[in-house]
Amino acid sequence: MRLGVGVIGTGFMGKTHALAWRNVQAVLGGMMGDVATPDLALLCDAPLDRAQALAAQFGFARATDDWQALVTDPAVDVVSITTPNGLHHRMALAAIAAGKHVWCEKPMALTLAEAEEMAEAARARGVVTLVGYNYLKNPAFTHAQRLIAAGAIGRLVQFRGWVDEDYQADPDLPWSWRAKLAEAGLGALGDIGTHLVSFAHGIMGPITSLIADMQTIHETRPLPDGSGRGVVENEDAASVLLRFANGAQGSLVISRSAWGRKSRLGFEVHGTKGMIVFDQERMNELQIYQNEGPKAEQGFKTILTGPTHPPYGEFCPAPGHQLGFNDLKVIECAALLRAIAGAEPAHPSFDDALRIERVIHAIADSARNGGARIPL
Amino acid sequence: MRLGVGVIGTGFMGKTHALAWRNVQAVLGGMMGDVATPDLALLCDAPLDRAQALAAQFGFARATDDWQALVTDPAVDVVSITTPNGLHHRMALAAIAAGKHVWCEKPMALTLAEAEEMAEAARARGVVTLVGYNYLKNPAFTHAQRLIAAGAIGRLVQFRGWVDEDYQADPDLPWSWRAKLAEAGLGALGDIGTHLVSFAHGIMGPITSLIADMQTIHETRPLPDGSGRGVVENEDAASVLLRFANGAQGSLVISRSAWGRKSRLGFEVHGTKGMIVFDQERMNELQIYQNEGPKAEQGFKTILTGPTHPPYGEFCPAPGHQLGFNDLKVIECAALLRAIAGAEPAHPSFDDALRIERVIHAIADSARNGGARIPL
Amino acid sequence: MRLGVGVIGTGFMGKTHALAWRNVQAVLGGMMGDVATPDLALLCDAPLDRAQALAAQFGFARATDDWQALVTDPAVDVVSITTPNGLHHRMALAAIAAGKHVWCEKPMALTLAEAEEMAEAARARGVVTLVGYNYLKNPAFTHAQRLIAAGAIGRLVQFRGWVDEDYQADPDLPWSWRAKLAEAGLGALGDIGTHLVSFAHGIMGPITSLIADMQTIHETRPLPDGSGRGVVENEDAASVLLRFANGAQGSLVISRSAWGRKSRLGFEVHGTKGMIVFDQERMNELQIYQNEGPKAEQGFKTILTGPTHPPYGEFCPAPGHQLGFNDLKVIECAALLRAIAGAEPAHPSFDDALRIERVIHAIADSARNGGARIPL
Amino acid sequence: MRLGVGVIGTGFMGKTHALAWRNVQAVLGGMMGDVATPDLALLCDAPLDRAQALAAQFGFARATDDWQALVTDPAVDVVSITTPNGLHHRMALAAIAAGKHVWCEKPMALTLAEAEEMAEAARARGVVTLVGYNYLKNPAFTHAQRLIAAGAIGRLVQFRGWVDEDYQADPDLPWSWRAKLAEAGLGALGDIGTHLVSFAHGIMGPITSLIADMQTIHETRPLPDGSGRGVVENEDAASVLLRFANGAQGSLVISRSAWGRKSRLGFEVHGTKGMIVFDQERMNELQIYQNEGPKAEQGFKTILTGPTHPPYGEFCPAPGHQLGFNDLKVIECAALLRAIAGAEPAHPSFDDALRIERVIHAIADSARNGGARIPL
Repeated sequence: MRLGVGVIGTGFMGKTHALAWRNVQAVLGGMMGDVATPDLALLCDAPLDRAQALAAQFGFARATDDWQALVTDPAVDVVSITTPNGLHHRMALAAIAAGKHVWCEKPMALTLAEAEEMAEAARARGVVTLVGYNYLKNPAFTHAQRLIAAGAIGRLVQFRGWVDEDYQADPDLPWSWRAKLAEAGLGALGDIGTHLVSFAHGIMGPITSLIADMQTIHETRPLPDGSGRGVVENEDAASVLLRFANGAQGSLVISRSAWGRKSRLGFEVHGTKGMIVFDQERMNELQIYQNEGPKAEQGFKTILTGPTHPPYGEFCPAPGHQLGFNDLKVIECAALLRAIAGAEPAHPSFDDALRIERVIHAIADSARNGGARIPL
Repeated sequence: MRLGVGVIGTGFMGKTHALAWRNVQAVLGGMMGDVATPDLALLCDAPLDRAQALAAQFGFARATDDWQALVTDPAVDVVSITTPNGLHHRMALAAIAAGKHVWCEKPMALTLAEAEEMAEAARARGVVTLVGYNYLKNPAFTHAQRLIAAGAIGRLVQFRGWVDEDYQADPDLPWSWRAKLAEAGLGALGDIGTHLVSFAHGIMGPITSLIADMQTIHETRPLPDGSGRGVVENEDAASVLLRFANGAQGSLVISRSAWGRKSRLGFEVHGTKGMIVFDQERMNELQIYQNEGPKAEQGFKTILTGPTHPPYGEFCPAPGHQLGFNDLKVIECAALLRAIAGAEPAHPSFDDALRIERVIHAIADSARNGGARIPL
Repeated sequence: MRLGVGVIGTGFMGKTHALAWRNVQAVLGGMMGDVATPDLALLCDAPLDRAQALAAQFGFARATDDWQALVTDPAVDVVSITTPNGLHHRMALAAIAAGKHVWCEKPMALTLAEAEEMAEAARARGVVTLVGYNYLKNPAFTHAQRLIAAGAIGRLVQFRGWVDEDYQADPDLPWSWRAKLAEAGLGALGDIGTHLVSFAHGIMGPITSLIADMQTIHETRPLPDGSGRGVVENEDAASVLLRFANGAQGSLVISRSAWGRKSRLGFEVHGTKGMIVFDQERMNELQIYQNEGPKAEQGFKTILTGPTHPPYGEFCPAPGHQLGFNDLKVIECAALLRAIAGAEPAHPSFDDALRIERVIHAIADSARNGGARIPL
Repeated sequence: MRLGVGVIGTGFMGKTHALAWRNVQAVLGGMMGDVATPDLALLCDAPLDRAQALAAQFGFARATDDWQALVTDPAVDVVSITTPNGLHHRMALAAIAAGKHVWCEKPMALTLAEAEEMAEAARARGVVTLVGYNYLKNPAFTHAQRLIAAGAIGRLVQFRGWVDEDYQADPDLPWSWRAKLAEAGLGALGDIGTHLVSFAHGIMGPITSLIADMQTIHETRPLPDGSGRGVVENEDAASVLLRFANGAQGSLVISRSAWGRKSRLGFEVHGTKGMIVFDQERMNELQIYQNEGPKAEQGFKTILTGPTHPPYGEFCPAPGHQLGFNDLKVIECAALLRAIAGAEPAHPSFDDALRIERVIHAIADSARNGGARIPL
């Protein structure tokens, strides 16, 4: 059985999707069960010659510069949406309307209303949806989930998350559409805060309320044309206090202007019997402390991922040899294939991702209201 | 010139004070300038034979089990108060009334009112006071302060602090006076949160407002006599959002129930040109990232403290050989001697420390009021 | 232009080659210049149905269980040899005789004589050869090379290398062909020591002489059929003293029985102005110390690889997001394509790799002769 | 009972000895048993006014600039020798002749013959001797020894040691007596290699033979008077292959010219069930890997020293708060006091230390003979 793939966008995430589609069968064919084989049918970008060149490079059969044609193309069964955030809503609705499955990058949309509309449309049409929370697929992360489920650190009592990068740290960086609410929506919260919330959900379950503050560190930036300075309308950083349905508390810190941090996305989760710590900048490592054995011999243990942390072994049978960022997307793609085959629900689907976006928007709401507690 | 020293308490902090008094001249004599030489005059603890045994061990001339006799003893010019927190207030007031200088462990008192009374009494009587924020004396920390003052990371925009230990992590630990508001006052906030606030002040300056949440992770504990379970009345953990007078934002996370953390007290401070990170569990290291030179060569640099980070060189002329916890107290003691000699103000004095305690109590207030913003 | 690819072997390295061939154009198409496009023509393994299943999974057009047919197949222009070491020699000679380019895993052969024969055959026939020293392709490693060439750490004075894994650490692991000289050849030296020598050559240039010791830690192992214990004929570990043509000295330590080490392959290189440290277990990090600026601000800097370390950016435009093991093989594959296109010499070719094998065998010779100095 | 203490030298090690004598009772009085109480009787240095000033600072009763007077002074029962290495021999012999116990810094002497003479004299006279291998007293190190003795990592199979500093890394550092064989004796081997051998002995037991190479990285240095360049007569670096009596093999690497290393003295010891790693630059940490439990949960554990690692708790009852370099000397001093009291043998005594010096000189011999194997 074949599955026609259409990918919209060829930038950072576009290429990652294309590579994932290209590789998922070759890498994970041995563990996906009975799923369809992807056909790289159609790649969309503008201008057309760029789309054509990259289609050739990535191995797509055809190219187009018309995303509307792509989402309705009969050769396309599933659509990857990897364009700037402001376009996700329109594209996803069109793809769903055409009965296509959708793999959409995060955040789903600029506003919560749009995201809700997308989730509802997908539910109504019965298509499979998946949102690009690739870090959830890291074998180190899923190992943490398994350890916690097995009681390795006891009852969970506190979650502390962080996500920091420095792509907006330089005060001299020119103003761009990223700074505009109407085009980019939220700032650091949408770009990277979403990933952090996906971790919080994945480890702790639902958040019941939050309080937040947020900050535009660089309030204006030089306009690219040299004509003065443009206002930065969205946040560079946010900090959040959380309460979880399981009774635990927590906190999140988020910044796109944190010098030196390149992909710092991690957490520590405190339990009554131990602690687990993870950071994506050392994505093949997981740290655990357990209150077991003699005190003199206790300490944080650094586990290197390997074949005992599935599906690492499909990439490499030798432990500690390390997966990379793009490998996570391949694992994510396999989850989508299995969902389309009906083997297991896609996660996070539009419905799941909507819950993440609710948190992000609640953070912004709380911050705009001077730190009001927002229930979820 | 001699300075008669009386120390009340012989536990963790009592011994540390005794060792500091014993060593300050020998270690730091070469850099303190013209200060008095400490005479280890009187050591107080109960029962008397314990006090006597430890006076002999620590090298004190005399012992007593009567702290009131100590604070009025004519051979005593300065009093170290290292008893449980609930006793600081009474002892400090008595010592001040007797015209003695006071070196008091933190927190100053159980309540803000008591702390204010202590600060006022000291101001009125004109004695020198110092509160035991020894981590501020770490050459790594003061190097961070110097780097920041020199503009090494530009304008400060965010401060993230943490302080975690696990002395109350075990759910089976018996109930003790530490759990009682009337005897211990605040929990983690008083014990270790104070240290973290001293860092926040030392790096960022005044806090203007905060919002907090707090948590008693182990709500009851087994009574030591086996008669059932006692209620834990104070907090195991707290999380805080901060705004600073310099325009920056920040956050604090605090726990005494964080398995695996033994002396994790640190921060990262984000600037417009770089970042500095410190953690007391690796107290001889300081990390700095600077946006300087080619991107391909940027990274976090780990500086090992050495003789170029005064007064490290007075302990050891070889870099990277490492100071220990007790050494910090020796440096603190030197600061007190210099203050008593009039060479420089003591820091943090009762007035400075009162500002720290205001923050701690504001955190508790905010948390008790559902996360209300508390101005400072 | 198309390039017909035949891969022999489908295990650890076979899959890695297959994935590299599959991806090289898609990932690195933008930076390889004018090279041929790989056609996944033929995959060989036994039994045939396994070969067929994996050909389907990996995307090869055809499958065979006859490697001799593969190396002479007209649709095959280049042959990947990824079988157990004892087979490399025969297969490579046959492929070369058929005029095919050869991409062979290391070590080239069981004996130096075989490796020499292979190199000579390739030279005589004029085919392009490349040996699988994928770690040389890590952007962190090539960045180290660039830094050194630019004088970042001055004159090189010492090289210390290590390579440790624990795949033979367990005393209870059953005896296998790996323990047999006639089938496996050298032990740790061949498997992983070769990689370390490739680093030593890549950083320091030629070795002029060496002295070594070596060790079979587990002298016998339980036979798999329970009939007793089999002798381990090759080394578990070796240690080496080196002298380099550039006047520097060095050392190597090598073990396949080092508990806890999973892919520990690294070095520190000392220069007159600084030091560089690398370890493959944190393959996206490079450490450098430079004697520059105030002593108080010196320290080891940890550089995270990113787009400023080519060709990282072709995988991901965001720094610190991390490459994985399989990505290195993709970069290696691109080097082969460029060499086949005549754009640049392949490195390490059979001739280059022969120099690596000479070192490994010299280590074994020295050790067998009680630590005699062996010139190279 | 009192013990009269005389200290010769007031530099790096002189101050450290003085502080140790000053503190040993106060810190470790509770665990030493029935030992004499040190009286800081006499401090020797030149000129006399420096000796007097430092005697006052360190708390010694008297000062002298005549070491011969010190070693025969009736108020002196034990002599600390902390002068440059070339003077140890004469001073130790004189002190022993006067019937004093001797605490001598390492290396014992410039030549093996001198060291042998010292050991023999001490044996003949029956005085207690101790050589300043303070790193052996680190609770992290002794914990490693206990773990190994308890079988935590099985049979020991390999030892890898390193000791690096950068005090002679700068090519522009002026020539000094340190570079002269007749005054300094060996270079890096004597200064720091000795410490590393003390670790090798402490972990593995006796060495049976070795092979070494050595290197003078900076062959000449600018003369301080600007009159040209002086020859460096001793080694900056050495590398060694070891065989141990227990059947294991090992290696040592040693450099005083290793940029960025400040106190890097450590080892990894491989066993059949695990590995232990220690480095003095993080002196309060010990790493252990054990092949226990599920593979998926194995990893290196970082143990922070605390009260469960005696005598840490005498310094501080809270784990992870960290000891410093000077604290190690206090522990060493306690061992000397106990030996003088007859409670346990001093270790390493002159006899033990002589075995260390034999290794160092064997290394130099092997290197000078082109890497000949030297039996021990």
